[in-house]
Amino acid sequence: MMAKKASESETISNELVLPNDTNVLGNLMGGKLLHWMDISSAIAAQRHSRRVVVTASVNNVSFNHPIALGDVVTLRSKVSRAFRTSMEVFIDVTVEDHRTRETIKCNEAIYTFVAVDQHGNPIDVPPVLPETEEEKTRYDGALRRRQLSLILAGKLKAADATELKALFNPE
Amino acid sequence: MMAKKASESETISNELVLPNDTNVLGNLMGGKLLHWMDISSAIAAQRHSRRVVVTASVNNVSFNHPIALGDVVTLRSKVSRAFRTSMEVFIDVTVEDHRTRETIKCNEAIYTFVAVDQHGNPIDVPPVLPETEEEKTRYDGALRRRQLSLILAGKLKAADATELKALFNPE
Amino acid sequence: MMAKKASESETISNELVLPNDTNVLGNLMGGKLLHWMDISSAIAAQRHSRRVVVTASVNNVSFNHPIALGDVVTLRSKVSRAFRTSMEVFIDVTVEDHRTRETIKCNEAIYTFVAVDQHGNPIDVPPVLPETEEEKTRYDGALRRRQLSLILAGKLKAADATELKALFNPE
Amino acid sequence: MMAKKASESETISNELVLPNDTNVLGNLMGGKLLHWMDISSAIAAQRHSRRVVVTASVNNVSFNHPIALGDVVTLRSKVSRAFRTSMEVFIDVTVEDHRTRETIKCNEAIYTFVAVDQHGNPIDVPPVLPETEEEKTRYDGALRRRQLSLILAGKLKAADATELKALFNPE
Amino acid sequence: MMAKKASESETISNELVLPNDTNVLGNLMGGKLLHWMDISSAIAAQRHSRRVVVTASVNNVSFNHPIALGDVVTLRSKVSRAFRTSMEVFIDVTVEDHRTRETIKCNEAIYTFVAVDQHGNPIDVPPVLPETEEEKTRYDGALRRRQLSLILAGKLKAADATELKALFNPE
Amino acid sequence: MMAKKASESETISNELVLPNDTNVLGNLMGGKLLHWMDISSAIAAQRHSRRVVVTASVNNVSFNHPIALGDVVTLRSKVSRAFRTSMEVFIDVTVEDHRTRETIKCNEAIYTFVAVDQHGNPIDVPPVLPETEEEKTRYDGALRRRQLSLILAGKLKAADATELKALFNPE
Repeated sequence: MMAKKASESETISNELVLPNDTNVLGNLMGGKLLHWMDISSAIAAQRHSRRVVVTASVNNVSFNHPIALGDVVTLRSKVSRAFRTSMEVFIDVTVEDHRTRETIKCNEAIYTFVAVDQHGNPIDVPPVLPETEEEKTRYDGALRRRQLSLILAGKLKAADATELKALFNPE
Repeated sequence: MMAKKASESETISNELVLPNDTNVLGNLMGGKLLHWMDISSAIAAQRHSRRVVVTASVNNVSFNHPIALGDVVTLRSKVSRAFRTSMEVFIDVTVEDHRTRETIKCNEAIYTFVAVDQHGNPIDVPPVLPETEEEKTRYDGALRRRQLSLILAGKLKAADATELKALFNPE
Repeated sequence: MMAKKASESETISNELVLPNDTNVLGNLMGGKLLHWMDISSAIAAQRHSRRVVVTASVNNVSFNHPIALGDVVTLRSKVSRAFRTSMEVFIDVTVEDHRTRETIKCNEAIYTFVAVDQHGNPIDVPPVLPETEEEKTRYDGALRRRQLSLILAGKLKAADATELKALFNPE
Repeated sequence: MMAKKASESETISNELVLPNDTNVLGNLMGGKLLHWMDISSAIAAQRHSRRVVVTASVNNVSFNHPIALGDVVTLRSKVSRAFRTSMEVFIDVTVEDHRTRETIKCNEAIYTFVAVDQHGNPIDVPPVLPETEEEKTRYDGALRRRQLSLILAGKLKAADATELKALFNPE
Repeated sequence: MMAKKASESETISNELVLPNDTNVLGNLMGGKLLHWMDISSAIAAQRHSRRVVVTASVNNVSFNHPIALGDVVTLRSKVSRAFRTSMEVFIDVTVEDHRTRETIKCNEAIYTFVAVDQHGNPIDVPPVLPETEEEKTRYDGALRRRQLSLILAGKLKAADATELKALFNPE
Repeated sequence: MMAKKASESETISNELVLPNDTNVLGNLMGGKLLHWMDISSAIAAQRHSRRVVVTASVNNVSFNHPIALGDVVTLRSKVSRAFRTSMEVFIDVTVEDHRTRETIKCNEAIYTFVAVDQHGNPIDVPPVLPETEEEKTRYDGALRRRQLSLILAGKLKAADATELKALFNPE
């Protein structure tokens, strides 16, 4: 299958924080943002694979900055690497103060999707071709993250995770 | 602050999968489940801390089993450990086939929350007292997960993560 | 058909009151609670019958206590009695003040469901086996409530409603 | 306070049954209809009292006819009688087959509301002036229903419910 | 096909403005009103044609009056004229101050619908028979609006739009 | 006030068509698209003015192409011209077949917004600086559309609408 550029899957979405998206402090609830990130990254994975995709896992989402009612949230999703039937997608979230129009980076998340056929069975996807520096760094890191997730799931022995081992035991 | 039993925070919710929660294959979308898990685990953290809580991070959610339209999804959330102002919450998700009433475990997720006062500033929470075997295992693992997350965020050196180091370099 | 314990159908749900669920006074609107009670009690009836169920009637819901934005509402539903194809379900609603964690009973409702096959035709359900004192009291009362509802619907003469007659004309 | 005609409170609403309002058989779920009835009857009570109103109780809702996806549901709400601070509202529900435009009566429900001031305290409402035959029948029945509901709530002795007693013990 | 009276398609809806329908000033957002108007006018077109209808165009909606949280919005839709397979529908929107019960006209909108068969292909609809003064004025104006819209879409030359030409070049 | 480039207000959103957004034919309902267009164009107007904005009018939205369940809808909004306190925004809507990834242009709409201060009073906005051919064409057309809308609202005599007059009465 022919590789596709990472940039071809880029998906941008802008969302307005409405009252029902907020908690009692008037800030965006985490669960709503997780939902928006899932839809945005699913569209990116669908663009890369031209298939129906289903969420396989979510990793390393951190919420560093409260987002207020009325703020505009921008989500940028891009496939970082593909592994046979699965795709890792990075979502960069920024929020825009509508008066100053200052843009603050407030989240970064990684979702993994599997492409499926009409019966729901996994199906192969094209490899990803990273071009920019950031795309290359994320492409390289994807293997390390995959090993870590296989270890945590008990499907890989720590001793065989060569990429990760180096991290903890360098010489 | 006096420790509270893990079981005191337990929060059960049952959700019915409706048409708008499903993808084109008729299965529950990941983003909707992430949203339900956020609300359920936030209630558990709120019960433990008796405070308003905000989502701090989401880790290691994997989706292993398609959940169909009309299925009943049961979420069980419980605080596994507290670190000064933050709480780690485990969410166990089962799905019930309404004809056989067979119950299948289909997800396990870990969310972290921070307790805040009325101005949104972090505030101390009580320690957790684990009682069952499972509660103790999750309590112990929480420290390892926290080190890993601090390393990934660049706030801790791998060399100082004693718990994790042992995992990759045992003797 | 073999009788099933009332407790086997028990269904617990926890809901967080969000802005869109509230009226201009900031309290939970009755219609939203009626909706939550319908879903919770439908799951209980579905658990008892292992069938698709449809709402047949709603009786005696009273709203005694305002429930505020941000409160946690807990619904406990349990089948109280079955009549051939229909099931009476009690829903007990409590609300929890998230600071004191004081739990206040605020509603009690009775919904009736009919089990149906895939064409929507009524189908037999197992009898209910009450065990606790409360389960027995509710089981006994179900017949009286059924007579009353048949009278109100013009399907039973008041003179034939022996259980009810005794209530108004004791000696 | 001057009496107001029952007809002045009449409130009509037309709703289209959307996918998310339906169960696995493709029919309108009871809970959604209960929600629509609450909003429609609340507007009628608000029109009668010119006050914020809160739902006090729901009685005798029966679901006799499945309503399908794409059908148009018409709700007609009208205050039937007022008791100092509370109002009984009848909701008549019809459904329209969009091909034949045949209109089928499918539900009748009774909701009770209390008018409140800005602090949520009950406040007096004008009496109702019934004009048509149906309005008069419903006005008269309201007292009987109120006695029944007070008995069921344990706030009135059956022996003192003169209107109801006659029903079961005619001589 | 036999003509049908304009009044036969009349569709009334009452909506309550909820928190999630409002912007940061606490007023109804335009997009929500556009959505309500679409459903209300679609029901009117469906009543006229007894067919499934799809929105073809929206013209000349203006928002003149802020509508507040808790207000009751009344929409009155009526088919003004039919052109073979399409129908023009007028929607008159009023808002009611629930304290004074003063009714203010706040919007007027024109939507056009096409009737379709089960494959989504356009299908003929009955002509409209206007009766009141207002119905006649709107019926006459519909031709002018149709010419204008054909010109704007580049499907009619301005010189051939006799009705419109007279407006700009009267003698 | 210093002019701002049209491109600075550009706002892109991607939406996934979910079951509840569709009609009985399984296609996106017009009202839902109108709602999405309102939010997308409001964000563009907010970016141009750095103010809260309210929808003033909607013109000339036509729906030419059915959009199916599961399709990805892309909305691109950009301020085309500003008139003291109001802004005209163009929304270009494309839909993407997720298998072929073929992109079809399916709608073009024009919304007008007014910038307001915290009391809801209109407030001045910066002029727009068009750069591309398309931006210039839309900028020029905006005056003609404004005259037409003032005529239709009865606020301008046709004889004074010089731009429009030329269109119907060229010599």
